[in-house]
Amino acid sequence: MKAAGEGIVTAALLVIGDEILSGRTKDKNIGHVADHLTAIGIQMKEVRIVPDDEPEIVAALNALRAKYNYVFTTGGIGPTHDDITADAVAKAFGVPIDVDERALAPMKAYFEKRGVELTPARLRMARIPAGAELVENSVSIAPGFMIGNVIVMAGVPQIMHVMLDAATRYLKTGKKMLSAAIELHRPEGEIAGMFEEHQKRYPDVPMGSYPFYRDGKPGTQLVLRSTDAALLAKAEAELKAELTARGWL
Amino acid sequence: MKAAGEGIVTAALLVIGDEILSGRTKDKNIGHVADHLTAIGIQMKEVRIVPDDEPEIVAALNALRAKYNYVFTTGGIGPTHDDITADAVAKAFGVPIDVDERALAPMKAYFEKRGVELTPARLRMARIPAGAELVENSVSIAPGFMIGNVIVMAGVPQIMHVMLDAATRYLKTGKKMLSAAIELHRPEGEIAGMFEEHQKRYPDVPMGSYPFYRDGKPGTQLVLRSTDAALLAKAEAELKAELTARGWL
Repeated sequence: MKAAGEGIVTAALLVIGDEILSGRTKDKNIGHVADHLTAIGIQMKEVRIVPDDEPEIVAALNALRAKYNYVFTTGGIGPTHDDITADAVAKAFGVPIDVDERALAPMKAYFEKRGVELTPARLRMARIPAGAELVENSVSIAPGFMIGNVIVMAGVPQIMHVMLDAATRYLKTGKKMLSAAIELHRPEGEIAGMFEEHQKRYPDVPMGSYPFYRDGKPGTQLVLRSTDAALLAKAEAELKAELTARGWL
Repeated sequence: MKAAGEGIVTAALLVIGDEILSGRTKDKNIGHVADHLTAIGIQMKEVRIVPDDEPEIVAALNALRAKYNYVFTTGGIGPTHDDITADAVAKAFGVPIDVDERALAPMKAYFEKRGVELTPARLRMARIPAGAELVENSVSIAPGFMIGNVIVMAGVPQIMHVMLDAATRYLKTGKKMLSAAIELHRPEGEIAGMFEEHQKRYPDVPMGSYPFYRDGKPGTQLVLRSTDAALLAKAEAELKAELTARGWL
């Protein structure tokens, strides 16, 4: 696992699905997972999108779980034949997979109450790799799961959201990455030189510059990031003072 | 390069930027690139999002360009110190990088006309790896470029769009992936069994099932894909006939 510094917890997200790569479905999960992890003190360091192809899923999963504290996956845990994520995860971990009574019992009760038949396809959704913890799905009951450092979630955004919330209690979290943003009505090409000098003075506070256009006029958002609140405040105050002195703020 | 079958052209997209991974900026480029490539006959097989970190960019780029016909990148080619993509690409290819007169001349003219100073930061945007072709930017002039099988584009969506259009004339395209979609007002758990049988009859026509909810009721979109129009039409017609016979369509 990558040494990410004391108190830093890292993660990757693996999005699984042909439909995202073809453009037919537009991903709505990456931004939500990014926001959630940032808020709880986990740094998302990489995202990959791969097709519904077992060797590709296994290879990506094994690369990512060796490199980061956690890997989250979305997609491919439904009832149809193209839902192969659970089997791919079992293969990546080298463990068997079968219908899990802990998953099946609540699904049975849920379907029975609604008069929905427990087809063999629906039964597939209770297949969980050996040794995994279930991740609750309060929307449609068929659960996600966590095995080792991998958290497997549905692709449908409403279901993914509740699974991510449910999984959060299992997670070790670290220092929160704090950020400060300053908006200027100046194009970034003008402030770039002084901004780079400021970055050099604070090498441990990563600084980014993001151009925007509003009412046809260029502007720049300067973002400073640190897990150290005092250091961040100092770097922000100094930058604001310098921008003010130049008449840019 | 991965053997993808005769007439098949593949691609990956590498999205570069801390701001996407932190959730501060929501990606708007993946879906657009996916749609564009599908429309022109290039199959996007993988997407990665990595931070503004040179070793990470170089490693991802080298992994992807060895595996697919093309790699597209977005982000990190602006004027500020956090824009390190062009240097990372030069490093990945082992070539020098410097201000390129072909890029500089139109930028000079453009800025002069608008009374905008050509700061050292803006000059950075004319730095192009040796051996690259320029990719036109009709919005803000500072170009993207193509080197080997890698196409480097801006992250700002409006600029990325015109660069992608401009790059398209350099690209070899292949058989177009055609698709047929059938919408059913049935949950996917019910149709999964017969759908899997249909997939087995047409192993060369990848079939996916996508659940949705509308007016509180579950539905399913079945998608069939093939580069062979006649085969796709046959598989679609047969599936429709079977769904109709069951009273599901």
